[in-house]
Amino acid sequence: MFVLEVVATIRASRMTPTDDDWGDTVSVLDLAPHLPDEALAGLDGFSHVEVIYVFDRVTPAEIVRGSRHPRGNEAWPKVGVFAQRGKNRPNRLGVSIGRIVGVHGRELHVAELDAIDGTPVVDIKPVIREFLPRGEVRQPVWASELMQDYWRVAPPDR
Amino acid sequence: MFVLEVVATIRASRMTPTDDDWGDTVSVLDLAPHLPDEALAGLDGFSHVEVIYVFDRVTPAEIVRGSRHPRGNEAWPKVGVFAQRGKNRPNRLGVSIGRIVGVHGRELHVAELDAIDGTPVVDIKPVIREFLPRGEVRQPVWASELMQDYWRVAPPDR
Repeated sequence: MFVLEVVATIRASRMTPTDDDWGDTVSVLDLAPHLPDEALAGLDGFSHVEVIYVFDRVTPAEIVRGSRHPRGNEAWPKVGVFAQRGKNRPNRLGVSIGRIVGVHGRELHVAELDAIDGTPVVDIKPVIREFLPRGEVRQPVWASELMQDYWRVAPPDR
Repeated sequence: MFVLEVVATIRASRMTPTDDDWGDTVSVLDLAPHLPDEALAGLDGFSHVEVIYVFDRVTPAEIVRGSRHPRGNEAWPKVGVFAQRGKNRPNRLGVSIGRIVGVHGRELHVAELDAIDGTPVVDIKPVIREFLPRGEVRQPVWASELMQDYWRVAPPDR
């Protein structure tokens, strides 16, 4: 068992965890009070950041430890929780990559980060090209279908 | 504060956390006893997996909360711990992408995963193309220099 401290909290334009339309999301990560400003120094030399956070609004009863249809959609195969990136998972950890807009003192401004307002952050890492997948990335058809509208810009009536 | 459970443990060819030469690493992730086999079902439909783990050999005294020279190398600028991916960080979380070799019952076989033998795993996620960085990835010169020999195949005398 490992205990995690919160290193930052996300202020985001998105309040509820709907599935799609994350394309226009803007967020600010506020560094936790116990960490010095310099923890973020130099991050603005990178274009992208990887944020590790906790899906803290998921209740213990919602956590899936076996398999399920992604998004509950029976048109897609039933696959293990570790073959999906959904939020109802053991340890409720999310890992997302956003575009760095800027670092201002204790604030990290990020675009296209798919996490809702108030989300607790447990780590922040720069995206380094050599750590991205080596070789061609292949994925099942259901995964491509699921992602179809994920980065769409939200319609104006939302 | 959040408490993490171990979902798998890594058996790896690499025993010590040296900086470079991870190119020939092969690993097996053994699913934790409390999880059903089906938690891994369907993962073999993907080419790559993202593994979230704990650098559990790092002691509390080694954790950096401010800034330092990456790898202690003064030729590189002093940058914040969140502008680096080194192991001596708050919460000691590592996130690495490996190539999926196969799923065999409760075992996930992975190539090129940069984690040492015995490392506790806290999440496993498939790599989905649409979650990789959107737009060009830029990084400082020091980061490219640091990664130069990272994926080199270890010399035969090691």
